[in-house]
Amino acid sequence: MKIIVVGGVAAGASAAVRARRMNDSAEIKIFEAGPYVSFANCGLPYYVGGEIKKRENLLLVSPELFRGRFHIDVKLNHRVAAIDRKRKAITVEAGGERFEENYDKLILAPGCEPLIPPIKGARLGNVSTVFTIDDVDRIMEALDEGVKSAVVIGGGFIGLETAEGLNKRGISTVVAEMQNQLMTIFDPEFSIPMEKHLNAAGIGIRLGVKIREICGEEKVRSVELDSGEVLPADLVIVSAGIRPRTELAENAGLRIGITGGIVVDERMQTSDPDIFAAGDATESWHRVSGAKVRLALASNANRQGRVAGDNAAGGSLRYQGSVATSVIRLHDLTAARTGLSESEAKAAGIDCCRVYIPEADHASYYPGSSIMILKVIWEKKSGKILGAQAVGKQGVDKRIDVLATAIYAGLKVTDLENLDLAYSPPYSSAKGPEIMAGMAASNVFRGEERVVTPFELESFLKENDAEVIDIRTRGEWDAGHIPGARHIVMEELRKNPGLLDPGKKYVVCCGVGKRAHTTCRFLLQNGLDVRNLTGGWKAFNMDV
Amino acid sequence: MKIIVVGGVAAGASAAVRARRMNDSAEIKIFEAGPYVSFANCGLPYYVGGEIKKRENLLLVSPELFRGRFHIDVKLNHRVAAIDRKRKAITVEAGGERFEENYDKLILAPGCEPLIPPIKGARLGNVSTVFTIDDVDRIMEALDEGVKSAVVIGGGFIGLETAEGLNKRGISTVVAEMQNQLMTIFDPEFSIPMEKHLNAAGIGIRLGVKIREICGEEKVRSVELDSGEVLPADLVIVSAGIRPRTELAENAGLRIGITGGIVVDERMQTSDPDIFAAGDATESWHRVSGAKVRLALASNANRQGRVAGDNAAGGSLRYQGSVATSVIRLHDLTAARTGLSESEAKAAGIDCCRVYIPEADHASYYPGSSIMILKVIWEKKSGKILGAQAVGKQGVDKRIDVLATAIYAGLKVTDLENLDLAYSPPYSSAKGPEIMAGMAASNVFRGEERVVTPFELESFLKENDAEVIDIRTRGEWDAGHIPGARHIVMEELRKNPGLLDPGKKYVVCCGVGKRAHTTCRFLLQNGLDVRNLTGGWKAFNMDV
Repeated sequence: MKIIVVGGVAAGASAAVRARRMNDSAEIKIFEAGPYVSFANCGLPYYVGGEIKKRENLLLVSPELFRGRFHIDVKLNHRVAAIDRKRKAITVEAGGERFEENYDKLILAPGCEPLIPPIKGARLGNVSTVFTIDDVDRIMEALDEGVKSAVVIGGGFIGLETAEGLNKRGISTVVAEMQNQLMTIFDPEFSIPMEKHLNAAGIGIRLGVKIREICGEEKVRSVELDSGEVLPADLVIVSAGIRPRTELAENAGLRIGITGGIVVDERMQTSDPDIFAAGDATESWHRVSGAKVRLALASNANRQGRVAGDNAAGGSLRYQGSVATSVIRLHDLTAARTGLSESEAKAAGIDCCRVYIPEADHASYYPGSSIMILKVIWEKKSGKILGAQAVGKQGVDKRIDVLATAIYAGLKVTDLENLDLAYSPPYSSAKGPEIMAGMAASNVFRGEERVVTPFELESFLKENDAEVIDIRTRGEWDAGHIPGARHIVMEELRKNPGLLDPGKKYVVCCGVGKRAHTTCRFLLQNGLDVRNLTGGWKAFNMDV
Repeated sequence: MKIIVVGGVAAGASAAVRARRMNDSAEIKIFEAGPYVSFANCGLPYYVGGEIKKRENLLLVSPELFRGRFHIDVKLNHRVAAIDRKRKAITVEAGGERFEENYDKLILAPGCEPLIPPIKGARLGNVSTVFTIDDVDRIMEALDEGVKSAVVIGGGFIGLETAEGLNKRGISTVVAEMQNQLMTIFDPEFSIPMEKHLNAAGIGIRLGVKIREICGEEKVRSVELDSGEVLPADLVIVSAGIRPRTELAENAGLRIGITGGIVVDERMQTSDPDIFAAGDATESWHRVSGAKVRLALASNANRQGRVAGDNAAGGSLRYQGSVATSVIRLHDLTAARTGLSESEAKAAGIDCCRVYIPEADHASYYPGSSIMILKVIWEKKSGKILGAQAVGKQGVDKRIDVLATAIYAGLKVTDLENLDLAYSPPYSSAKGPEIMAGMAASNVFRGEERVVTPFELESFLKENDAEVIDIRTRGEWDAGHIPGARHIVMEELRKNPGLLDPGKKYVVCCGVGKRAHTTCRFLLQNGLDVRNLTGGWKAFNMDV
């Protein structure tokens, strides 16, 4: 039995070691096109930023380790050029030579590569992606020579993480993003706090812009936007998307899916039973929507690799799909998401509902708490949790992992309100943000109240000739309120519901949606047509 | 409709406001025996410790707020002395007077009270529980007068949290615990790192001791243990357990359960359909074992109160049971648990298995990571996750909340290995501790390897005439190893499995259990009878 693995980073390395554990007598070889095996690719932006200080920390695993501990043969700088499926052999190129190698089972883990948009100047010196060790070596060299200003093209994971790192090094940094929001895997409103905090840290943000030209002679000197703005730049980071490396699979006639990834089943088997595939180049499925997805997430790549290696070696593990959980640190902020976004759910034709919960990460009477905003999205009819997003300074990753687990398990919002989570004042509240979200969502699901989101408020008011009633205290109102809102303090309104017109529609607004919930329940039972502005003034401003 | 709530802290306050939201026309009254409503009882130890600086931070809610926002009438210092179920009336004592008050629905949320063990001197000055605002007022007065040394009787939540606080104030503090471990809701081995870290912080620990006498004239001066040791003490904190306040219910003939709590169904209805109960004084059920339990956890009290209030007001919420999740901070350490402990599972007659996973809280190549030890317990036959415990400096509460959610949902270890959680180097690893635990547990569940825990090792070796093979590097071995173990470096053993005897049983030990897993898989396939020492040298020492 001979197992060949193509690609030796996350998915490939996981596949090879799982295959070894399952089959000790197999011959196992990894062919890696690059010069390193299983390097810390998610750490690259933090190395550029200087938080990871030593280059060798990115290279924790060596071919010698694979040999000594796993009896796996790792060939670096070996590019697999072709697969002959009939003869079960691959063609390998290395050091200017070509040779053939046969296989019993083949595992493809080629990963993806950065997209370089067709911009003039994209090949100038000091224009780089942050994708390989070579990339960061080149960037570090540029930094050593002195970089005063940088432009990052693309406001996704790698772009923002790198922008943060450059900013921390004291480099004047601007992020230019083609879309009208940062981090498009989030719903658009989550871009607001991201922009605010990055701006506050001194990072410039340009949204909805295209790059006209990257300018310079040998090295880049500036970047010109389609708006005409010219941004000075001694360094340009291109993080404008990725594409899966599927040429090898395509040329071999393996099935490629609608997302552009290599089609695999739950065993990670391709359309050829002797060929498996795993990682960023594969098309897997979303556990919530069932839709085909192609994800470039290290966590998925590792799990998929393990399943591919297991099955290639004769095992029977099954990949369980992804709920697309991810997290990003943005200066002092954490943003995380799981499942479907509201935009994704709507695009998939799912009738969904959502609440926003601004809530402290731990008991507010214990020092050091800070507010996060948690959004939970569920299927209107069934109550099944579809997705969640959160942003804040502390405890965001914890809440999203809880939601990711709930979504994996197919729980409903009426389960979320009943979760039994760890409480002690330094860690959470007796009813933490997830529980509060579960309660608020369940209240809506059970028909106890209706909500309007801050982001549909304007159109709701127009369409319904409705009015916003702000029930907060005088001090809160004076500090800022929704334009056009009417101020009636909660206690006053409770005494005198006659202040409202039974023939009219109202949206009740408070600080975070709690007082408004109590007030809506009271008003509803008094025959008034009211809705809660979910998340209140906090969510209206996405203020964390 | 008139709803009376007895008790106005966590469960009672939650019940009253939920009842109000569900029924706006009901008359709702809270009778609270103490002088405060809904105070921050979980914050008391942190106020004693000086972390919560202002007394008013413990008292965020007032009767005026209940009146103004909820039209709920809160009567403080009103003790409910009797229930006349036939006439649906209660007798209330206040200010030396007695009066009757009728009800349509009654909600009992009397909570619990501290047990004062029958020790000589327990009524001396400067001997106090940490249970009420009055308690901490008295303790703060003592601290103002100057306290040099303190003894805390009882090594549970309140005892340890208070000991930490006193220690932070520079007071020489000793914890005296009757059992042979701290925090008996954890399995005994988790006491090891707790003791170590509290000791390192300067807190003395005495386990398996009884108090012979609390000595002093007017005020305490010392505490004498049954060992003869005399501990100086200007202050004694008694946190030796609690008992539910059930007299009122008992005297009214309501059913009391085997745990000593008031029996309720999933609507939180007692044996009288017009009387509901919630919080620490009730007997609810464990969602995993189905067993009757009485829990004193604020999170449960809040949820139960909400269900009781809902049903009393005509709603239909159902309590979903508890998985008994809790967390404690101990100096620089966090310890948390959920579900059943191994001891509890065994006591319940469940055939269970478990793994220990020492794993960094985030990618170890990113600065600032630290190792936690996560224990996961599952039902041997089904793979259903029964419980989890973890201890470490960072990220412990997150992992236990993920496990608590998985356990609530009835997930199996084979689900745990497939969870899709948020990964980015500052937050977790591509395969974080929960996923690693899921993989390790699933490997055992599927029969791919067998494990021995560090805490059954001695008896296993004896009973099986087995030998420990330590496969770590020379340097690791030299830094410390299991007495009697034999050292064969992993790479050597892989080259020469003949070093082991096919007729003998072995336990393979590495640093955390990963290299040993690979080695066990290799040796098993070479016909050797081997087991993995789960958690390796780290778990052997419970070293976090």
